[in-house]
Amino acid sequence: MTAKVRLYVEHPLGAGQSVPLTPPQAHYLFNVMRLGPGAEVLVFNGHDGEWAAAVEGGTKRGGTLGCVAQTKALQLPPDLWLMFAPIKKARTDFIVEKAAEMGAARIMPVITAFTNAERVRADRLRAHAIEAAEQCGGTVVPQVDEAQKMGAVLDHWPEGRRLMFCDEALVGSGAALLDAPRGPWAILIGPEGGFSPDERARLHALPFAHAVSLGPRILRADTAAVAALTLWQMALGDWRGFSGPATAPI
Amino acid sequence: MTAKVRLYVEHPLGAGQSVPLTPPQAHYLFNVMRLGPGAEVLVFNGHDGEWAAAVEGGTKRGGTLGCVAQTKALQLPPDLWLMFAPIKKARTDFIVEKAAEMGAARIMPVITAFTNAERVRADRLRAHAIEAAEQCGGTVVPQVDEAQKMGAVLDHWPEGRRLMFCDEALVGSGAALLDAPRGPWAILIGPEGGFSPDERARLHALPFAHAVSLGPRILRADTAAVAALTLWQMALGDWRGFSGPATAPI
Repeated sequence: MTAKVRLYVEHPLGAGQSVPLTPPQAHYLFNVMRLGPGAEVLVFNGHDGEWAAAVEGGTKRGGTLGCVAQTKALQLPPDLWLMFAPIKKARTDFIVEKAAEMGAARIMPVITAFTNAERVRADRLRAHAIEAAEQCGGTVVPQVDEAQKMGAVLDHWPEGRRLMFCDEALVGSGAALLDAPRGPWAILIGPEGGFSPDERARLHALPFAHAVSLGPRILRADTAAVAALTLWQMALGDWRGFSGPATAPI
Repeated sequence: MTAKVRLYVEHPLGAGQSVPLTPPQAHYLFNVMRLGPGAEVLVFNGHDGEWAAAVEGGTKRGGTLGCVAQTKALQLPPDLWLMFAPIKKARTDFIVEKAAEMGAARIMPVITAFTNAERVRADRLRAHAIEAAEQCGGTVVPQVDEAQKMGAVLDHWPEGRRLMFCDEALVGSGAALLDAPRGPWAILIGPEGGFSPDERARLHALPFAHAVSLGPRILRADTAAVAALTLWQMALGDWRGFSGPATAPI
């Protein structure tokens, strides 16, 4: 089973459409993968689904693909934000990769009282999100925001969006999510040191917040992110009632 | 919030019990953490729960702790095996870490037709499982087996144990797990290249197997492991009906 190369491109896709390659894409296709004219790859841009495209020509620094046929319809992820307090670099990268794989629509690093992280480089995180979407067969790359203070995000919380928050000191059965309303949601993963008492009091008082326990053991933040995404997707997202092969073609 | 050092030890624990330290443990406590006599750490051995223990004395190469009081009762994980086809080293390490955090009792690397991995070093994986148990507040370290052929494991399958298997080409809603029988289970995560047609036919024909879909996107094996553990723990394990703070003390 040889998987075709999948590329995220920032260009419209459609029958007969030519798609220019960036220098890193050209390097990957022609130097690393050694593809020649006529070779077929898969492309997606977050709007037009997935297309098979053939190499029209290229050099080390550029080239073009020609769209052949749509291979998959656009599959928008559910309207789910993943908010998390950044941690060590490798584990932050991992959270972004997993959020993209598991179908979050927007990834928001938030700075909390006890957040202890190097500067968050949103451009690097975006590159991870793109790579994960390319690998997992998704047709959309989640938006990755610059880091913001958690308090500021809560100050401007949009009407109608619910918040699932996970913190080892909090209570609430994950199974209760099955009975929660569907619609726009956000998941909030606390920092490794937990929330501050002030933060916890504020979160508890939010009328749109649902506290959810992730079992009797303390999970690392990266584990908690995947576990929370799983619970949400199964209870309220696009895994709910899903029973079929992954990424079925159109 | 300063978390106490937690150590897994292979020695009985009980009131007044002296516990010898291995050279790496002595190095960690006395050189890295710079603890002195009287300093308190937490220890567990997989049998006697968690104990507070005080440093009695030590050198660079050894030392002893004295048990003071039990701080947590033994919390056995559910009787759940995690079987997975080994992948790249960092992601295999990650699967073992997550399985220990999330409460699998036994971790079994299995070699399938399409498994493409370096040799699996069970001793290294055990070290990862111990570190994860130390970090997550668990009182048990899961058993880590040497790699075995998947076919041989299925040939000697124990009576009464059910198998949840996850493969992107398979169907089955995760929500159906809520209605599955409790008791001994195993989770099987397929290799990155999927199962071979023969393997798939065999798995489908097993009377104790339950195919479960992990949503409409293809997940990497490490993501699939955490997602499958989450679904199982919530539906059938010790997260089911759990609604309280993580790792409550006795």
